[in-house]
Amino acid sequence: MATIFTKIVNGEIPCYKVAEDEKFFAFLDINPVAKGHTLVIPKVEDDYIFHLDEETYIGLHLFAKKVAAAVEKAIPCKRIGEVVLGLEVPHTHIHLIPLNQESDVDFKKPKLKLTDEEMKQIAASIAKNF
Amino acid sequence: MATIFTKIVNGEIPCYKVAEDEKFFAFLDINPVAKGHTLVIPKVEDDYIFHLDEETYIGLHLFAKKVAAAVEKAIPCKRIGEVVLGLEVPHTHIHLIPLNQESDVDFKKPKLKLTDEEMKQIAASIAKNF
Repeated sequence: MATIFTKIVNGEIPCYKVAEDEKFFAFLDINPVAKGHTLVIPKVEDDYIFHLDEETYIGLHLFAKKVAAAVEKAIPCKRIGEVVLGLEVPHTHIHLIPLNQESDVDFKKPKLKLTDEEMKQIAASIAKNF
Repeated sequence: MATIFTKIVNGEIPCYKVAEDEKFFAFLDINPVAKGHTLVIPKVEDDYIFHLDEETYIGLHLFAKKVAAAVEKAIPCKRIGEVVLGLEVPHTHIHLIPLNQESDVDFKKPKLKLTDEEMKQIAASIAKNF
């Protein structure tokens, strides 16, 4: 069965898309820990980043680097943090999180509540900088 | 002035080393959030992972992938998580953290207290699997 992320890539589930190429895709995390919190994924379904083949692994990181630069231009922050956990959705994903302090990366704190309009505006701003 | 990590690479500050090649270095985090918590760094001093030149950026991630496989063999866990924050030490470093649940990545909880003997044993076990 397709993962939720594959359904997002295929447009079966809506998302706030920020970037896409032939092999990779980036969209806003629907439960952001910070404004501009973005997920970067390979289109191929693979549960574990360290099991990706070398070409996909390198491509994913190069794509994430470009997305991070776009997020950084769109969202005021000190830098972009990067987190890969992956025990919940079985489809490799890199969290890119705008940081002003290290404690901004805290998956336990209440998630931000942003409106549909705000999410659209953030996604458009990142996409424009990609 | 050399960063604390450059001093570690140069042997001026002791560490629990787990892996090294010509350009990269890995050692145990002295304040681990989990047993086997490892830092992976480029020998070149650069403050921000997304500002590394492409060759170093790719090389660092390929080295981290090999170190992650070694940590996974040495430490019982579901998988290895990856975190890059970098607002504290101005020298790019990837945290590799053995995960059993996503909440294992929590930089706010009290750090593990391991003895020098335990740290040496963990480092030796990872190094043997590298």
